[in-house]
Amino acid sequence: MNMEKNGKREGASSLESVPGFRAAAIAAEFRDWPKPRNDLALIVADAPASAAGVFTRNQVAAAPVKIDRKHLKASGGVARALLVNAGVANACTGREGRDNALKCIRRLGGRIGAPDEQVLIASTGVIGVQLPLAKMEKGIDKAVSGLGKGKPGDFARAILTTDLRPKESFAVLDGEGGVVMAGACKGSGMIAPNMATMLAFVLTNAAVAPKALAAALDEVVPSTFNMVTVDGDTSTNDSLFLLASGTTRTPAIGKSSGKLFGRFVDGLHQVCLSLSTQIAADGEGASKLVRVRVTGARKRREAAVAARTIAESPLVKTAMFGNDPNWGRVICALGRSDAAVDEEKVSMSLCGCAMFAKGAPLPFDKAELSGLMRAEEVELLIDLGLGKAEAVALTCDLTHGYITINADYTT
Amino acid sequence: MNMEKNGKREGASSLESVPGFRAAAIAAEFRDWPKPRNDLALIVADAPASAAGVFTRNQVAAAPVKIDRKHLKASGGVARALLVNAGVANACTGREGRDNALKCIRRLGGRIGAPDEQVLIASTGVIGVQLPLAKMEKGIDKAVSGLGKGKPGDFARAILTTDLRPKESFAVLDGEGGVVMAGACKGSGMIAPNMATMLAFVLTNAAVAPKALAAALDEVVPSTFNMVTVDGDTSTNDSLFLLASGTTRTPAIGKSSGKLFGRFVDGLHQVCLSLSTQIAADGEGASKLVRVRVTGARKRREAAVAARTIAESPLVKTAMFGNDPNWGRVICALGRSDAAVDEEKVSMSLCGCAMFAKGAPLPFDKAELSGLMRAEEVELLIDLGLGKAEAVALTCDLTHGYITINADYTT
Repeated sequence: MNMEKNGKREGASSLESVPGFRAAAIAAEFRDWPKPRNDLALIVADAPASAAGVFTRNQVAAAPVKIDRKHLKASGGVARALLVNAGVANACTGREGRDNALKCIRRLGGRIGAPDEQVLIASTGVIGVQLPLAKMEKGIDKAVSGLGKGKPGDFARAILTTDLRPKESFAVLDGEGGVVMAGACKGSGMIAPNMATMLAFVLTNAAVAPKALAAALDEVVPSTFNMVTVDGDTSTNDSLFLLASGTTRTPAIGKSSGKLFGRFVDGLHQVCLSLSTQIAADGEGASKLVRVRVTGARKRREAAVAARTIAESPLVKTAMFGNDPNWGRVICALGRSDAAVDEEKVSMSLCGCAMFAKGAPLPFDKAELSGLMRAEEVELLIDLGLGKAEAVALTCDLTHGYITINADYTT
Repeated sequence: MNMEKNGKREGASSLESVPGFRAAAIAAEFRDWPKPRNDLALIVADAPASAAGVFTRNQVAAAPVKIDRKHLKASGGVARALLVNAGVANACTGREGRDNALKCIRRLGGRIGAPDEQVLIASTGVIGVQLPLAKMEKGIDKAVSGLGKGKPGDFARAILTTDLRPKESFAVLDGEGGVVMAGACKGSGMIAPNMATMLAFVLTNAAVAPKALAAALDEVVPSTFNMVTVDGDTSTNDSLFLLASGTTRTPAIGKSSGKLFGRFVDGLHQVCLSLSTQIAADGEGASKLVRVRVTGARKRREAAVAARTIAESPLVKTAMFGNDPNWGRVICALGRSDAAVDEEKVSMSLCGCAMFAKGAPLPFDKAELSGLMRAEEVELLIDLGLGKAEAVALTCDLTHGYITINADYTT
């Protein structure tokens, strides 16, 4: 993805450059990485910041996820620090896993003078393995002394597991007022025995009350992160954090309505859409990003479920890989989704070429359309002809690369 | 699959050998097949037979499916003939498609002296293309004159599209009374632009009232055909037919309860389980059959949804291909299913080797277990520890072969 599209200004457009926060990334050596890299990342707010989080719906939730939910509640949506470790997910680790995470939180809180419930933790990596506590504690100390001393993009790189590239996004919410927002995420990386965990971190210097922050996330997540599917799996660790330092002089956003809130949500949507699109494009083995846009549904929820079902279909995704304009597979996935579908009202086009209208196939030049599919981004547009609701799901094609990455196992 | 396991007696154990029915298979040349083959199959009952059918839940249903539902209702569950064509699915073909199917039905009914609503039709193949009516009509005439003249297995072979092998099953329901049951099916074959349609045909000479026949199907389908998943897709044409000629002298089964009915259901279950297992084992690119058995659920429905979610997970299926004993991916799929899951009560074993118990991983010899996974059949057993309900889902591994078959597209 071309990150310049997001208005990224060199050197002033990473998480590292959001006023009110300092970041650090260090090498704690949690795993025997193929090449030396940072694997512990830290964000510390100079003063207590508003905080909100959205977490996996998987009933098997990792220790850090359970702790974060508690802390956000106990603190009333306030955080001073966010610690991220790559290499060990701390999932399926029982009481010991929870205690280890709390020890790390206690240590970090002590170093920066923050109560436990204002410290959040995120982990990604191998599951069933305990956090290497000694390395974590040494790493925390090192990271705290390294705050503000790294370079832009350090945080985004330190959180990766098997992603091919770091994923960042930046937006100016209010140029005059100097209100900015920056995000970094990881996801879609999966090699045995790691989890395909999605972690996203968004910082802003806007002043937003905790409840309004949570409301903004709720508005934006359903049409961005929740509409990305690489292979349909949701990990034990998926987490999205949004922190607002409130250092700007622009008016504070106290409620989840009104023009100020609306503009904030727009900016958050832009950043989250960019991050989630990068996740889909970087899907394992992916050769192209696929946008599945469903329009004309009765309700948004139906448009979303139709788009997701099509985007998750292995038959549709392999057709995308094979540059096969196979409307039949799309119709099949659509028909089995939970959205109301009337075959005779469905229309479909791919890469701008109409393939199907009012329930019957249209003649089209297959060779030409197949050629158009050989692109980095492909859009499949399906109109249900039943209403006005729309939704877009993002995915990638299903390729030999995916099989190789996920079935390559050596004892 | 070793068909001898099903008690197949050479020459007397195919659909062709069920008393009260005659079968035929001929070459109508609906498509330019790679090698010459039969592609029109026919079953005719000497006298009106009890009939029941279960069809796809896909909201986009092919013309034959819509007609069959109507006919089974209009006839009160009675049929004289079942026509099957391979090569053209007659789906997304509008009014013309429906009219063509009815013309074929009218012609066949005329040839054998049966009213339209006692004639059923099933199609599999390319979608969006009209039935080649002239070839169908010629083929119907040819098939009618060929009734009873072919060899055992002809029908099972004529219905295939891209399956690697014919799939048949046979059971003796009552040796003394000479009550038998035979089934044939096709499924899991998919090359662009065909549908992965599942068609199954079961014949018996038992005397069963239509309502009891339908009830027997309803009892058996949820734990057999509905628990098979190759890639989660349900086609526009999936159909399962059960016909009972009633030529035996054993007592008729008039109601859906009691010992006679129970024994009938057991026999039907045996045949349907065998057929659906063969479909899973013959999944595209499959190198092994995978059984996902979930026990200890609160309700059967939850056990089934947990088993299916795990069986549909691309991450679990690629791990199976890679002989990777990856319990983490299984737990992840389980946790996102709609079944109630308490992580701390979950236990798991693979190929008989315990991997996970009461919420925590167990030490096991990975190399040894990986070796055990190199088999034609692999069983994954997950106990939820919440109740007594169970379910088994059948699938196959996800391999490079699947990608090749489904992404190989030449204009």
